Amino acid sequence: MRMLINSPQTVVADALRGMAAAHPELDVDVERRVVVRRDAKAGGRVGVVSGGGSGHEPLHAGFVGYGMLSAACPGEVFTSPVPDQMVRAAAAVDCGQGVLFVVKNYTGDVLNFEMAAELAEEDGLRIERVLVDDDVAVTDSLFTAGRRGTGATLFVEKIAGAAAEEGAPLDRVAALARRVDECSRSFGVALSACTTPAKGSPTFDLPDGELELGIGIHGEPGRERRPMMSAREIAEVAVGAALEELAQIGPADGPVLALVNGMGATPLLELYGFHAEVARVLTERGVPVARALVGNYVTSLDMAGCSVTLCRADEELLRLWDAPVRTAALRWGL
Amino acid sequence: MRMLINSPQTVVADALRGMAAAHPELDVDVERRVVVRRDAKAGGRVGVVSGGGSGHEPLHAGFVGYGMLSAACPGEVFTSPVPDQMVRAAAAVDCGQGVLFVVKNYTGDVLNFEMAAELAEEDGLRIERVLVDDDVAVTDSLFTAGRRGTGATLFVEKIAGAAAEEGAPLDRVAALARRVDECSRSFGVALSACTTPAKGSPTFDLPDGELELGIGIHGEPGRERRPMMSAREIAEVAVGAALEELAQIGPADGPVLALVNGMGATPLLELYGFHAEVARVLTERGVPVARALVGNYVTSLDMAGCSVTLCRADEELLRLWDAPVRTAALRWGL
Repeated sequence: MRMLINSPQTVVADALRGMAAAHPELDVDVERRVVVRRDAKAGGRVGVVSGGGSGHEPLHAGFVGYGMLSAACPGEVFTSPVPDQMVRAAAAVDCGQGVLFVVKNYTGDVLNFEMAAELAEEDGLRIERVLVDDDVAVTDSLFTAGRRGTGATLFVEKIAGAAAEEGAPLDRVAALARRVDECSRSFGVALSACTTPAKGSPTFDLPDGELELGIGIHGEPGRERRPMMSAREIAEVAVGAALEELAQIGPADGPVLALVNGMGATPLLELYGFHAEVARVLTERGVPVARALVGNYVTSLDMAGCSVTLCRADEELLRLWDAPVRTAALRWGL
Repeated sequence: MRMLINSPQTVVADALRGMAAAHPELDVDVERRVVVRRDAKAGGRVGVVSGGGSGHEPLHAGFVGYGMLSAACPGEVFTSPVPDQMVRAAAAVDCGQGVLFVVKNYTGDVLNFEMAAELAEEDGLRIERVLVDDDVAVTDSLFTAGRRGTGATLFVEKIAGAAAEEGAPLDRVAALARRVDECSRSFGVALSACTTPAKGSPTFDLPDGELELGIGIHGEPGRERRPMMSAREIAEVAVGAALEELAQIGPADGPVLALVNGMGATPLLELYGFHAEVARVLTERGVPVARALVGNYVTSLDMAGCSVTLCRADEELLRLWDAPVRTAALRWGL
């Protein structure tokens, strides 16, 4: 085990203690596992709450703050948080304007957020849910019916959070979030497996010199395994797959937001080199890139690899993307 | 090779093409390997230029922008840039107010920046240099006479850049940069070796279940190899070593800036857990943490591990640390 931890049992609690120490602007409940923006109730805004298994940091807690999430609920590593966390988060941020739950499409998350929504509604809160399901690699997978939710989660959380920050009502924030999901597609590649603290050894076997095309963010199987490819070739496959599925929602009608996302252990040097190839493929196919983000945002512990997420963004989505944000992991305009 | 690259020969050029595509606010000369803030000449400010071997991203090019570096010169992986790059960068940013070179203490960098300073001065530029040598693990190493330059580089570049942005003259920017270096100490730990694109296999042998205390950012040997330790134990050693050397410059007289830095392949989940232990040790030893930064900033390709950098920061340094910054990798207050 090459891990910087105290014990597999305390990984999530230890990380939350570290977040609390590093980010005094966050209210971190280590025991109950809820991370809340301290001023969540101050603005009278719609709340935006997300959560999911740990191991994908900075997603989600790193996106809590001005202009993005109101609160996040981290589960155990690669394990859904429980409804009690979500209900607590909703109550901590609700100002009477209602709360949007941003849910990545994994069966555990979907069921738990559904139960949480029912419980919160019984408490008198208005809840909307948006399902993020952008990963085109496979339909139905180890933990999912339908497409998996991956990199587009960042786009949904940023744009819904910006709308909420501006004072948009719940139905409008939810509609924008759904539009972002509908306009976003992702494709990921693993160059190595990841190792969970509990298991202590790689979650699957990927021999050196091979890669897995269409990997999920927990190491779920993808489309196929191949001998190692160049960054150029991987970009062709990943961008091609995302564009092909985007074409099914209608003809291209404008620029995209592009996220070149590291899975955790791939150096930023390589991610930028990969982005050069992604940008080249998009240019060759006549797709303008309005904004690009390159880095480790929706990770899979220590997996080597990357994903590409493209979102067809009209002027409204671009304006909300550009709006100020101030979180641990994403900041601009403030 | 588990690398997302086209070829070992094109890694740096490909990354620069990607930076150019992702960051239109940067003027990236891919061929000559200089990254310049587009508005470098607009403000009539002192220039702040750094550079070094690639493989430590986001250092240095990720720190080019408002309130930090005016320009950066990336060398080949783990190889100093050449004087011609540095002279070109200085000329690209000089407004007649002079330029500060921020130089990590590795023999190649020191010699090349020295030669570049002479050449630039022959061209009529005023040049000051600051040497960053914060790593307490070893004196003299594979590539270094004296202490190595590591995490404190971020502190020096941020604070010198903030002073330059405010319009401070060259001697003042240089004096502040030297003060930050003198007040900063670092200690790093490797849980795995890193793999350079050229070599294609780990640069040294670190068996699973062992760690190297006092590692350098190129994998240079540290103080000792030990069986795997807990995050708690590593924090005791790393913080203890940094504080011990800080004590030699005088009694503790205030709070510290703390950087908990990932070497590249250690998940952010673990880095935050480690930061909890770092914060705990500092609290136990009576050292207040004024500001903390947790993430991958001064990396070593795909090495697993971390470093701790502490900087004794008075009110002036804290004010400059808090000043607005807008770069690819560090942003706040704007």
